Amino acid sequence: MTTFPLNAWYAAAYDTECGRQLLARTVCGQAMVLYRREDGSAVALDDACWHRLLPLSQGRLDGDQVVCGYHGLVYNSEGLCTHMPSQDTINPSACVRAYPVVERHRFVWVWPGDPALADPARVPDLHWNHDPAWAADGRLIHVKCDYRLVLDNLMDLTHETFVHGGSIGDRAVAEAPFVATHGDRSATVTRWMEDIAPPPFWAAQIRRARGWTGRVDRWQIIRFEAPCTVAIDVGVAEAGTGARAGDRSHGINGMVINTVTPETATTCHYFWAFARNYMTHEQRLTHEIREGVARIFREDEHVLESQQRAIDARPDRSFNNLNIDAGSLWARRLIDGLIAAEGGVTGRPVIPLQVRQA
Amino acid sequence: MTTFPLNAWYAAAYDTECGRQLLARTVCGQAMVLYRREDGSAVALDDACWHRLLPLSQGRLDGDQVVCGYHGLVYNSEGLCTHMPSQDTINPSACVRAYPVVERHRFVWVWPGDPALADPARVPDLHWNHDPAWAADGRLIHVKCDYRLVLDNLMDLTHETFVHGGSIGDRAVAEAPFVATHGDRSATVTRWMEDIAPPPFWAAQIRRARGWTGRVDRWQIIRFEAPCTVAIDVGVAEAGTGARAGDRSHGINGMVINTVTPETATTCHYFWAFARNYMTHEQRLTHEIREGVARIFREDEHVLESQQRAIDARPDRSFNNLNIDAGSLWARRLIDGLIAAEGGVTGRPVIPLQVRQA
Amino acid sequence: MTTFPLNAWYAAAYDTECGRQLLARTVCGQAMVLYRREDGSAVALDDACWHRLLPLSQGRLDGDQVVCGYHGLVYNSEGLCTHMPSQDTINPSACVRAYPVVERHRFVWVWPGDPALADPARVPDLHWNHDPAWAADGRLIHVKCDYRLVLDNLMDLTHETFVHGGSIGDRAVAEAPFVATHGDRSATVTRWMEDIAPPPFWAAQIRRARGWTGRVDRWQIIRFEAPCTVAIDVGVAEAGTGARAGDRSHGINGMVINTVTPETATTCHYFWAFARNYMTHEQRLTHEIREGVARIFREDEHVLESQQRAIDARPDRSFNNLNIDAGSLWARRLIDGLIAAEGGVTGRPVIPLQVRQA
Repeated sequence: MTTFPLNAWYAAAYDTECGRQLLARTVCGQAMVLYRREDGSAVALDDACWHRLLPLSQGRLDGDQVVCGYHGLVYNSEGLCTHMPSQDTINPSACVRAYPVVERHRFVWVWPGDPALADPARVPDLHWNHDPAWAADGRLIHVKCDYRLVLDNLMDLTHETFVHGGSIGDRAVAEAPFVATHGDRSATVTRWMEDIAPPPFWAAQIRRARGWTGRVDRWQIIRFEAPCTVAIDVGVAEAGTGARAGDRSHGINGMVINTVTPETATTCHYFWAFARNYMTHEQRLTHEIREGVARIFREDEHVLESQQRAIDARPDRSFNNLNIDAGSLWARRLIDGLIAAEGGVTGRPVIPLQVRQA
Repeated sequence: MTTFPLNAWYAAAYDTECGRQLLARTVCGQAMVLYRREDGSAVALDDACWHRLLPLSQGRLDGDQVVCGYHGLVYNSEGLCTHMPSQDTINPSACVRAYPVVERHRFVWVWPGDPALADPARVPDLHWNHDPAWAADGRLIHVKCDYRLVLDNLMDLTHETFVHGGSIGDRAVAEAPFVATHGDRSATVTRWMEDIAPPPFWAAQIRRARGWTGRVDRWQIIRFEAPCTVAIDVGVAEAGTGARAGDRSHGINGMVINTVTPETATTCHYFWAFARNYMTHEQRLTHEIREGVARIFREDEHVLESQQRAIDARPDRSFNNLNIDAGSLWARRLIDGLIAAEGGVTGRPVIPLQVRQA
Repeated sequence: MTTFPLNAWYAAAYDTECGRQLLARTVCGQAMVLYRREDGSAVALDDACWHRLLPLSQGRLDGDQVVCGYHGLVYNSEGLCTHMPSQDTINPSACVRAYPVVERHRFVWVWPGDPALADPARVPDLHWNHDPAWAADGRLIHVKCDYRLVLDNLMDLTHETFVHGGSIGDRAVAEAPFVATHGDRSATVTRWMEDIAPPPFWAAQIRRARGWTGRVDRWQIIRFEAPCTVAIDVGVAEAGTGARAGDRSHGINGMVINTVTPETATTCHYFWAFARNYMTHEQRLTHEIREGVARIFREDEHVLESQQRAIDARPDRSFNNLNIDAGSLWARRLIDGLIAAEGGVTGRPVIPLQVRQA
């Protein structure tokens, strides 16, 4: 069963992780070694020597080239073997696969599928992660679940009420109606909670940023871009000042940036960041929010890994759906479409074509 | 291969384990969540939310109902969904399986098979575990072996001589003849060791209880009740005072209570207790015996887990049998009969129909 | 897939490991229990009781016999059952397999295949390990890789340059030409590095042994004997004193003794020793060299286990070959021949019949 398309850009590393040391990372089941050339550009090669399969990540860099740590074969950054020990001629077929790489929005993206299709224009827009009008910080976490469970989680924020009751969740989220729409490669869930008491996190933010302590209009606009990126526009504004109609000048705005890279069928690399457009020079606030979000995501991690274990233990069971699943159902259908377009077969019928809803 | 029948009562928990918190336990491969209603009655539900399979044991109780820890679906104690987030109508098919439950003899019993067959009269008699004429205490241990290996162990106490030489075993056990009988659902092994020096454990007990230090008549009457309960009537009396003929007034009596619940094909929950009918108000003695028996059972646990690993490593090998195996062979045949009656197929032919004996 | 022949002598233990206690060890997938009779001769029996499969290694010795730790069955050192509990007659078929055993060159060798073929004359010659003209010491390490990866490693010492650059490796090894020859059951790789500056290890040895600090002629003569033994004749002599022509009187000589016993298809017991013919009474030097070699072999262990994981992760990939692999290719072909002669099928075509070389 195929759980992810190969012809897509996947975040393989935060920019800071990739440097002049060799980094081993598995993306879509493909073990890669990542590093930077002396000019700073990022490289991703197959992490197995052509000769005897030792991971190249256990070797060393020599300029822009990688030297295998077993017998000293040398590969250039296009993956061609340029030196073999104890012989003058080189087998012209000796090489390792080089993956298309693009660095954008603070992530190093790789394309594990057909290189001819690797169009940089298809890297998802996550510009808030480096735009000077925003302050952003985040982390990479390794989660032992199918990456699609993380997407389900993000596409339905109702779970905040039950999983994150102490911070960002309250009954308002579960009770508020939402609108789900979709395009060819994206799906959007929009939820407005108007004239409500803000939950603890937002109450503290708007008090600090604007000195406001009253009722708010709150929004969550969740945008999925296939196959694995979710950017969530979140915020609150003073109640009744027109935020829903487009005037956010009385409010504060965050972007929750998420891109979830399959490692294997049941594990993933979850890259996230939280960006904000207020008090952008307050380092302490940046630090505080990053730690706060990390705490919240650890609650999700616990749920997601439990869910994966439950799925593994019940191979005969599929999911059932509620109204709240409209967004995640569209995300799943878009992913299934990409997989089918590559000739793959998706797994158990988690999501029927005719969306069943309660 | 099926290693256990489903239409049977299995101990899922000690009464003290089951309360107003959610307890996850797997019985016969079925993950259950156990708790008590506000009226104290015990409940066992399938431990997976209908919606997205998260274990319900990670949610919380709300009165008699369980709230899922992911999206807040609520189930009553019969397993019916009574609330779905963000929607007014409830899909009438939304439910989780509720298992028949009976609480008796200090255990919470569940019936993993056809609920229509769940007759409480078939709960094994282990009344010594709560009868005021007896003092009883015990434990639950998790053993990484097929539950039938524990039964084999209990049905032939010859092993005491070799595994428990320091406490309850001596050559008398291995040398004494025994009689094996059986009924439709039970098998009994009776062994009398008359006019012997008692082994250390019993020497200490009869000295404390009756001030006696001489030779004894010792008995072990092992009664198996299919599929997984073994009650062992053990004791010693002053030699020659007629215990074998039925007069135990010059002796002391214990009951070793064992009920072994398959968790998976190769792991089990082993519930045991030791009850005695002498010095029943001596708390220190109760504590001392419980710890002593626990030490002895740890010796068995080590043997049983090694045996399971050896079995796993030799899939082509079956057991061979000795005369001493008569009791365990009957227990195995009764279990195989229950499995066959459910249409199951038992595993490798451990026990031939024509009992081979050395 | 078969990765090892069964009709061969395999080192099961260092002589010091085998004594009057029971030692459990798995050789070629076969769990054995090893011990010595009272006369000192070594015994290897199948490590599973005939009755209920408990490992006999969990029992105890009684004279030359083994008593099972569960029900007390007794086996003599030929594997015949001589006692059954609670019965006078013994089933004549009750026995466990006894393996042919030979003790030689400080190892206890067992023959896991057809006992009729177990000719002691086929034990590999590793006499340096106990010859009084040599001082030898070594160790057993457990490596989580196919034993053939260790052989590959030993048959091509080019890797010293890259894996052991800090001690025995320098560019001279990778640059020096070598000659590979082979016989019916053996393959030899000979490499002379003449008139070179010695690497750190040999520089220190020849200075201590002979007070010499100048350039040397260095040799490595690697001799594989199928299926799993490699003896490496190594040394240095004062440059130009005729070592290559046969006069080693101006040099010092070591023998690296290696015999690698498959435990499973992907784990092995690697027995090694380093013997030297100089300063043989210097205990401190013996100790120092043993620790030094152990450090070097830990570097190999790290590479070999990584390589095995890479192989396991890429079941569709085979190896490619370089000129330096000539020796290991012959070793592999000789092993494949032994496996084929037993009717086995070797694994993925690591080594093609027509040796591909770069």
